[in-house]
Amino acid sequence: MSAPRTTVRNLNRTRDKILAAALAEFSARGFAGARVDAIARRARVNKRMLYYCFGAKQDLYREILRRKIADRAEWLESTPDDFAGVLAHIYLSGGTDIDFVRLMEWEAIDSGGRKCIAEAERRALFEKAVARLAVLQRKGSIPRGVNLTQLFISMLSLALFPMVMPQVIRLIHGMEPTDPRFMRQRASFLRWLGERLMRGTESARVQPRRRRIPSKRAGQLA
Amino acid sequence: MSAPRTTVRNLNRTRDKILAAALAEFSARGFAGARVDAIARRARVNKRMLYYCFGAKQDLYREILRRKIADRAEWLESTPDDFAGVLAHIYLSGGTDIDFVRLMEWEAIDSGGRKCIAEAERRALFEKAVARLAVLQRKGSIPRGVNLTQLFISMLSLALFPMVMPQVIRLIHGMEPTDPRFMRQRASFLRWLGERLMRGTESARVQPRRRRIPSKRAGQLA
Repeated sequence: MSAPRTTVRNLNRTRDKILAAALAEFSARGFAGARVDAIARRARVNKRMLYYCFGAKQDLYREILRRKIADRAEWLESTPDDFAGVLAHIYLSGGTDIDFVRLMEWEAIDSGGRKCIAEAERRALFEKAVARLAVLQRKGSIPRGVNLTQLFISMLSLALFPMVMPQVIRLIHGMEPTDPRFMRQRASFLRWLGERLMRGTESARVQPRRRRIPSKRAGQLA
Repeated sequence: MSAPRTTVRNLNRTRDKILAAALAEFSARGFAGARVDAIARRARVNKRMLYYCFGAKQDLYREILRRKIADRAEWLESTPDDFAGVLAHIYLSGGTDIDFVRLMEWEAIDSGGRKCIAEAERRALFEKAVARLAVLQRKGSIPRGVNLTQLFISMLSLALFPMVMPQVIRLIHGMEPTDPRFMRQRASFLRWLGERLMRGTESARVQPRRRRIPSKRAGQLA
């Protein structure tokens, strides 16, 4: 009953080392380009240990993604109550997590976005996020009739793009997107943009080419 | 005086075939992954001809980028006069050019955005675009005091993101970003967003944490 405690602790430490090494390797080379040998070398464990802890490369990748998704889901629970705050918050959490952004970017470019690992978990996370926006809409801080899916896509666009295209930011702005001065300026701009987009929401025009919501449904939403 | 005309025409046709093949190869594999052999094979020319027409792989890549940048620059001359129109237009031109977006994405992910080919031409294009926004700002359709660099980054974010992250769009929206129905919906949403962002511009609050523009400079801008 005494040996197992140390063993478990050591095993957990080994797993953490492997996960950190795998994140670095997947972020640098993408899923297709990453090599299990290189991950084992980075983590200073042998390959047999790596397979024992996580199984094949695909399982290890799925575990990395699952942890990143769990971070985001946890964070989603504690988002601010105003649209501008949520937008700035997505930027300051997801949009500055360079490894997470690079994992998604590799996936997009390597496979043309066709195959996806941990698709169900990610879809669930996105649905939860859109549901959060629906709550804000019911409370009146997002205009009725706005397409929340397009709005959420736009929030991710605004938040993630700088880290997705660092060279474009450098060419336009002169700073790296990882520069704390850039990040402060971006967060402040996004807060301004979010406030301006949603100000005077009660009297807001609905989006063009969308039917007005019938009064019954509007009542249901309100 | 008669032979050269056919020769020139044939050479131009060969150059066009090589450029089309190179764009397909660079879009599929990025600059580092693209192979001159594969480009020559796709274009059905021999490698010696390819080198004769364009020089090394880097020169060919630069030529591809230059043409894409020239397309954008030409398009920039004829942008609409309102912010929402410009935003929708960037989406419908650059944001739906999958090869162009993929070239930039490969560049971002392969090199961490550090090295850039045709950097001067691209910086010039971006400066021109920001100058266009400054004109709109002077005309009063963009609030004074808004950081135009951050605004332009945001326009590119909103316009390019769907094509940059097709798998994210599929997971959130259920459609491919290349689906004409998605594209119509996105363009309409961006028009709505642009109008809403800039409505009532005359009475607009200036961005927080930025100094009010002294009246002299404001007069100069107006």
